[in-house]
Amino acid sequence: MSKSLTKRSEDYSKWYNELVVKADLAENSAVRGSMVIKPYGYAIWEKVQAQLDKRFKETGHQNAYFPLFVPKSLFEAEEKNAEGFAKECAIVTHYRLKTDPEDTSKLIVDPEAKLEEELIVRPTSEAIIWSTYKNWIQSYRDLPILINQWANVVRWEMRTRLFLRTAEFLWQEGHTAHATRQEAIEETVKMNNIYAEFAEEFMAIPVIKGRKSESEKFAGAEETYCIEALMQDGKALQAGTSHFLGQNFAKAFDVKFTNQEGKQELVWATSWGVSTRLMGALIMTHSDDKGLVLPPKLAPQQVVIVPIYRSNEQFEEVSKVAKEIQTKLQNAGISVKFDDRDTHKPGWKFAQYELQGVPLRIAIGPKDIENGTVELARRDTLTKEFVAQEELTIKIQNLLVEIQDSLFFKAKAFRDANITEVDTFDDFKKTLKNKGGFISAHWDGTTETEQKIKELTKATIRCIPENTKNELGKCVFTGAASQQRVLFAKAY
Amino acid sequence: MSKSLTKRSEDYSKWYNELVVKADLAENSAVRGSMVIKPYGYAIWEKVQAQLDKRFKETGHQNAYFPLFVPKSLFEAEEKNAEGFAKECAIVTHYRLKTDPEDTSKLIVDPEAKLEEELIVRPTSEAIIWSTYKNWIQSYRDLPILINQWANVVRWEMRTRLFLRTAEFLWQEGHTAHATRQEAIEETVKMNNIYAEFAEEFMAIPVIKGRKSESEKFAGAEETYCIEALMQDGKALQAGTSHFLGQNFAKAFDVKFTNQEGKQELVWATSWGVSTRLMGALIMTHSDDKGLVLPPKLAPQQVVIVPIYRSNEQFEEVSKVAKEIQTKLQNAGISVKFDDRDTHKPGWKFAQYELQGVPLRIAIGPKDIENGTVELARRDTLTKEFVAQEELTIKIQNLLVEIQDSLFFKAKAFRDANITEVDTFDDFKKTLKNKGGFISAHWDGTTETEQKIKELTKATIRCIPENTKNELGKCVFTGAASQQRVLFAKAY
Repeated sequence: MSKSLTKRSEDYSKWYNELVVKADLAENSAVRGSMVIKPYGYAIWEKVQAQLDKRFKETGHQNAYFPLFVPKSLFEAEEKNAEGFAKECAIVTHYRLKTDPEDTSKLIVDPEAKLEEELIVRPTSEAIIWSTYKNWIQSYRDLPILINQWANVVRWEMRTRLFLRTAEFLWQEGHTAHATRQEAIEETVKMNNIYAEFAEEFMAIPVIKGRKSESEKFAGAEETYCIEALMQDGKALQAGTSHFLGQNFAKAFDVKFTNQEGKQELVWATSWGVSTRLMGALIMTHSDDKGLVLPPKLAPQQVVIVPIYRSNEQFEEVSKVAKEIQTKLQNAGISVKFDDRDTHKPGWKFAQYELQGVPLRIAIGPKDIENGTVELARRDTLTKEFVAQEELTIKIQNLLVEIQDSLFFKAKAFRDANITEVDTFDDFKKTLKNKGGFISAHWDGTTETEQKIKELTKATIRCIPENTKNELGKCVFTGAASQQRVLFAKAY
Repeated sequence: MSKSLTKRSEDYSKWYNELVVKADLAENSAVRGSMVIKPYGYAIWEKVQAQLDKRFKETGHQNAYFPLFVPKSLFEAEEKNAEGFAKECAIVTHYRLKTDPEDTSKLIVDPEAKLEEELIVRPTSEAIIWSTYKNWIQSYRDLPILINQWANVVRWEMRTRLFLRTAEFLWQEGHTAHATRQEAIEETVKMNNIYAEFAEEFMAIPVIKGRKSESEKFAGAEETYCIEALMQDGKALQAGTSHFLGQNFAKAFDVKFTNQEGKQELVWATSWGVSTRLMGALIMTHSDDKGLVLPPKLAPQQVVIVPIYRSNEQFEEVSKVAKEIQTKLQNAGISVKFDDRDTHKPGWKFAQYELQGVPLRIAIGPKDIENGTVELARRDTLTKEFVAQEELTIKIQNLLVEIQDSLFFKAKAFRDANITEVDTFDDFKKTLKNKGGFISAHWDGTTETEQKIKELTKATIRCIPENTKNELGKCVFTGAASQQRVLFAKAY
């Protein structure tokens, strides 16, 4: 398989699809809309999981596991949530196959094994979890409940794309229960902040924190907080959401507690999640025409060593030094792969690790042994230099930090350069067409205006940003009074 | 809720069910046969996962993720495997709900959203994975493939019990592909050995390694290796299995590779798994009438500190020392909870931590402060002693090792005392009735005899043990010649 990719400038979407497959991250499966996450892609996801899990636990959350299936009667209990997911859910109706009497090599659904009540494969778990919390919560002493679940969910999307939109995906979903509105809102904001910190510090993806408009919020939520990122092609991507659910699910499932004064009250809820979609954000924030570019904190291997040799003797000589370097780096806490396969040539390996985004590549040959050097290549800048072997460990430690920072600042500079303030709808349309990115504009606050702008431009309100100045102005579409700019964009 | 449990001697099964629920490990859900794994139970499962995952990676395996759904045509491709699971699988037939025209508060399955091909919720993933491997394998250079998946699976069991048999459960499933029969068999045995070491060293569960008989092996396997454990009530429990799948799945999915001589060959396969069933084995190996007993290596908290006080002043004084002890222990790598809740009395806390199997409990009150001591209680033996505060860390480090070993040796002594060699069918039946446990008996090797013994006694062949002497004898049932004893038992 050729390692070269379609250029981003030619066809960004094609570039993305090719990169995901060629870098061995994921591929389409035999199941419509479902992907196979390949070992290299999964290794990155495991790093995401480990970091998030640590942050959840440090803030007092515990993991648990709830059923995959949601009985239809529970699914429909919270009306808005049900409405939001009804059109895209996989439904289990039978529990047995039997031999096809017309062709005994085939199986057919056994019509006698029909379920009394259909089961929905969870698109999200509020319903099943709140029907459980009902039994866990009696008194204020049982609150708060701070639970997270790592799980697969299914949403029957019609147009799917690897990582970005798949029928089945992996995610985490936090579900918390609180005694007061205030505490639940604080939890919602706290988890959105954790997502933002994680995205920026670990994935090197700059994000804007904010709230969703009425029409973009989660089905069943009172308020949805989110982090929004900007991809290289000028489209936005929602990277995580945190929902203040009010008492909606407590009402739907009759979850009440006795407060300190002995009175019965409905419980307050939050839920929050990020998914394998983050892998798409990662790719479209940092990668280039040569392939993936990985921030060192997420790279399954931070350094790869490729030996250069023409004879067995040279191979032995080079390998000895390469292994010493590997050990030194590993002792310094750096993950290093020594690729000593003789089935592939150095040039093939170079291209492979560029494609897979390994942050640093060491090449070492007989000349390097003579000179006490190695050739060190940096993936993000595609620059090379010779480095003395004795200075290598410190050099690499520093470079890994530098690359992590540099990726973030480069992405942030791009993002900031692509937030455009506009004050007329004409400029709005021109900017969207010629430049893309986030458009910062006044909006009159109505769903009607938002819908009209969407119909005319395909841009939606990505968020009402958190850190923004109050500024009196006029809605870019209707001219009605507005007190704050919001961010519009076309989005993934 | 009362903390006292039914005694094991009264009703073992009832004791088990009560313990699982009261110790906050798991509970039944609103979905028939599916459980909720509660945070405390899930924390233990996370320790199991982390340890196994480490061992898999150390032996060269990588994690990946394959789809939850298996299209029916793939599901039925390997005939025996399909036959084995057809009667217990959940089937997705539709992908959309719609508003019930007769009651708009309800949803019904939209008959227009019927899938062209039904999807089976994976009961195991050989089919979906081997249909994927077909595209990954062309040459001997692509082999071996050593992949593991952590996932949920669904088997529509009619009689379910928490952890032991549930419609949905969590597990890991390894799926490897090899160039030779020999290499695949070696992998199968290696993974069974890893399960055995893990069960014994980490879970303190003694296991017998062996192979399954023809009728007990995995549907689609040529040979199933297993580890078998013995529960306190004399019933066996299959704790893990590793299957040599021969070329069955390669044939079914046409997976061939070009060998070093340039010829096409079918690929050899293995699969291996352990599940949340291990939680059941853990409980029924170590626990007692007071509740769970956890090996220190698996305990979410190894030590709990309970303060004893009658006034705020005493609480302050005791807390100060308790926190110092907590810090010291944590610095020594021990996990410690300081339960300073004022909503519960010490006696309640003692019972709670006994029920939850925390290996060591420290109680500290004003008298202890005076004397420079603490009261240290050991969960497994229910013994208590006073220990000088300055000796506490070393004492506890030693005790945690001692408890881990002691639990294993106690369980092993019980297991060994409950393997009975019998040479007549009369003794077979008597032993099974009066004593239970493993019955070591000669067997003529036929499925027919095995089935008859099962019909008459409900005992099955748990395994043909690996470490056993060749011994000529006569089948306990038919009198036909036999060269080795096998282990029979009633089983979970």
